[in-house]
Amino acid sequence: MEAYSGKRVLVTGGLGFLGSNLAIRLVQLGASVTIIDAGIPGCGGNLRNISPIARDVRVARYDISDVESLRPLLQHTDVIFNLAGEISHSHSMEYPDRDLDINARSQMLFVRECGRQIPGVRIVYSGTRQVYGRPEYLPVDEDHPIAPVDYNGVSKHAASEYHLMLTRDKLLDAAIVRLTNIYGPRLAVNVPCQGVLSVFFMRLLLGLPIEIFGDGGQLRDPIYVDDAVEAMLRVGAAEKLKSRVFNVGGPVALPLGEIAALLCRLAGAPPPVHKPFPRALSKIDIGSFASDSRRIGREMKWKPKVLIEEGAARTLKFFRERLGDYLNPADGYPECPLRPKALKEKASAFA
Amino acid sequence: MEAYSGKRVLVTGGLGFLGSNLAIRLVQLGASVTIIDAGIPGCGGNLRNISPIARDVRVARYDISDVESLRPLLQHTDVIFNLAGEISHSHSMEYPDRDLDINARSQMLFVRECGRQIPGVRIVYSGTRQVYGRPEYLPVDEDHPIAPVDYNGVSKHAASEYHLMLTRDKLLDAAIVRLTNIYGPRLAVNVPCQGVLSVFFMRLLLGLPIEIFGDGGQLRDPIYVDDAVEAMLRVGAAEKLKSRVFNVGGPVALPLGEIAALLCRLAGAPPPVHKPFPRALSKIDIGSFASDSRRIGREMKWKPKVLIEEGAARTLKFFRERLGDYLNPADGYPECPLRPKALKEKASAFA
Repeated sequence: MEAYSGKRVLVTGGLGFLGSNLAIRLVQLGASVTIIDAGIPGCGGNLRNISPIARDVRVARYDISDVESLRPLLQHTDVIFNLAGEISHSHSMEYPDRDLDINARSQMLFVRECGRQIPGVRIVYSGTRQVYGRPEYLPVDEDHPIAPVDYNGVSKHAASEYHLMLTRDKLLDAAIVRLTNIYGPRLAVNVPCQGVLSVFFMRLLLGLPIEIFGDGGQLRDPIYVDDAVEAMLRVGAAEKLKSRVFNVGGPVALPLGEIAALLCRLAGAPPPVHKPFPRALSKIDIGSFASDSRRIGREMKWKPKVLIEEGAARTLKFFRERLGDYLNPADGYPECPLRPKALKEKASAFA
Repeated sequence: MEAYSGKRVLVTGGLGFLGSNLAIRLVQLGASVTIIDAGIPGCGGNLRNISPIARDVRVARYDISDVESLRPLLQHTDVIFNLAGEISHSHSMEYPDRDLDINARSQMLFVRECGRQIPGVRIVYSGTRQVYGRPEYLPVDEDHPIAPVDYNGVSKHAASEYHLMLTRDKLLDAAIVRLTNIYGPRLAVNVPCQGVLSVFFMRLLLGLPIEIFGDGGQLRDPIYVDDAVEAMLRVGAAEKLKSRVFNVGGPVALPLGEIAALLCRLAGAPPPVHKPFPRALSKIDIGSFASDSRRIGREMKWKPKVLIEEGAARTLKFFRERLGDYLNPADGYPECPLRPKALKEKASAFA
C-alpha cells in the first residue's frame, strides 16, 4: 500500500465508522488526507473517531451537496473515498425523503462536481448489499438482481448508478464496493438503527440483554472494519479497474443467533433472548445473506483475515476503554422511532 | 376492455401526451376518470389535450407529491395509471436535481401514500427503455442490465424500484411498462427536448427541415400512441400479473434516417439534412435500440398494430388541424438550453 504515500486523498463521511478507520489507515500510509463530513444527525459522524489523527488531517464540515464550498478542496485530489451517507435501513422507512436527499440527491451533485473539477478521478463508493434485497441464491455475487426491500437500498443504488454513468462517460473512474455488516472499533453504537451488530454491541456495553428477533437462523457474514478498509484501499489503488462493482463480505457466514451467542460469551453477558420480529423490521429483513467476494479476491488479491472471535474481542476492548466517547445521547438521531427507551435512560448517565 | 366499464380510474400526468390519450380511451370504455396533473412547465401537460373529454373527467391540478391534497382522491380508486413525470433526457442532464425531484422523490411520496390509502391497488407505471442505456444486445428484453446514460434514466429507475418494492411488500400490485419512442396525436411538439420524434414533427409542422445528427443509422422502434395505450390498458386490467416489468416497443425497428425520410415524404417536405452530433446529445445517445416486446405479447396477448406510415399520417393530420393549440411558446420549458432559436421565433407567430 505504498501507493498512498504522498497522495492527496479525500474521504467523504470521514468522521463516520468506516470513514474514520480508513482515514487513520491512510495517514499511517503517508497520505495527505482531507475529510469532508457535515455531521448530519443520525449518520454516525463523530469527531472523537479521529482523535488519533486530529492533527494530521484537514476536516471540512461541509455537506457533499455544497459543491460551491467543496470546489477548492476537490482540485488536486488523487483519490476519493466516497462514504458520506445514511446507512440506516429503518431510518429510511420512516423518513424516505430524508434518505433520498442524503443518499441520492447529495451524491448526484457531488459526483457531478467531481467529474467537472477533476475529470477521470478514481472514486470508490461505499455501496451496500441491501441493494440485492432478499437473496435469490447464496452466496450473492455481483450479477444478482437488484431488488431492494427498503428506501435506503433504492437511494444507495441510484447513487451507485450516478457513479457508473459518469464513469461510462469518462468523467469519473469509479468503483462500487458493496459491503455487508461491518463491525469494529468506532462502530456507531451511539446511533440506533445502524444495523444489527451496532445494536448488539451497544446493548452489551450497556449491560442490556441482546435480543434476537425470530429464530436467529438467518445467515450474516460480518466483516471486521480493518478488512473492509483494506478492500477499499486496494480498489482505490488499483492501476486499472477491470470490474466496477465488488461485493465485500466477511470470512464466514454464521446464523445471527450464533453470532449473538458468541458476542455474549466474549462479553461475559447472559445469553441472548428471543423475541418476535417487530413488523417494522420484518418488512425490511432480507433473510439469510452471504456475500460472494470472489471477484475482489481475484482482481485485487484481497481476502478477509479477521475472524469474528478475534474482531469482536478487539471491538469490545476498544469500546470499554472509551465508553463515554460513544454514548452521548446528543449524537443519536433524536426522532428515531426505533430508539429503545431503555437505551435513552441508560445512555443519559453518560451525557 | 369491458373491464373498465364503471371502474374508478386515476391517471397521473393525464394532461400529457400518453396520459390524455389514455384518459380519452378510458372514458370511451365507460370508466370514471380522474386526472391528476400539476402542469409542471416542461413536462408536457396541456389542458387542450383533453378537450374531447373535458366534461367527462375530473381534473385535479395537484402535484403527485402533495399527498395531503390527494388523499380523498385516492380512496375508492380501482386502478391507477401513473404517468406523471418528466421524460426529457436532455432536460435531466442540465437540471438533474429537478429530474430527481419530479421523477423519484414525488413518485416515492405518491406510491407510498397509495400503499397506505388503497393497499394492494393495481398501479401501472410508465417506465422508459432509457434505463437499459446503450444496449448490449438487440432486441432488448426485460433481463437486459440496467445501465442508464442520463439522470432521467436513474430517476425513472428509482421510481420503478419504489413500485416494485412496495409490491413485494404487498402494499401495491404494480407493473412497470418500459416504453420506447411514442408518437401520435397530442405528442408534446410544443415542448422541446421531449425526444427525437417530437422534434421531427415539430419541425415538419413549422416548415423547418428535419435534422439528423450523425449518419442516422441508429435503429428505433417507434410506437403509435394507440398501441401504447392498449398495452397500458391490458396490464391495468389483467386479473393476475405473472410478470411485473414489460418492454413495449413498436412493430418495426428502422434506422432513424429512414424514419425521418419517411416523415418528410408524408409531409411533402424536403428530405432531412445531416448534421454532426452535438456533444450534449451524443453523451446521452444510446445508439441502436429495439424492444423485445414478446413478454407482454405472451402474457397480455398484446401486439402493436399501427405501422409508422399510417401512424405518422394520422399524427400530421391531427396537428395540422390544431396547430395553434400546440405551438404556444408559453407551454415550453423556458430555460431549456436546447430549444432552437428558430423555433422560438417561428412559434411566437402562434402566440
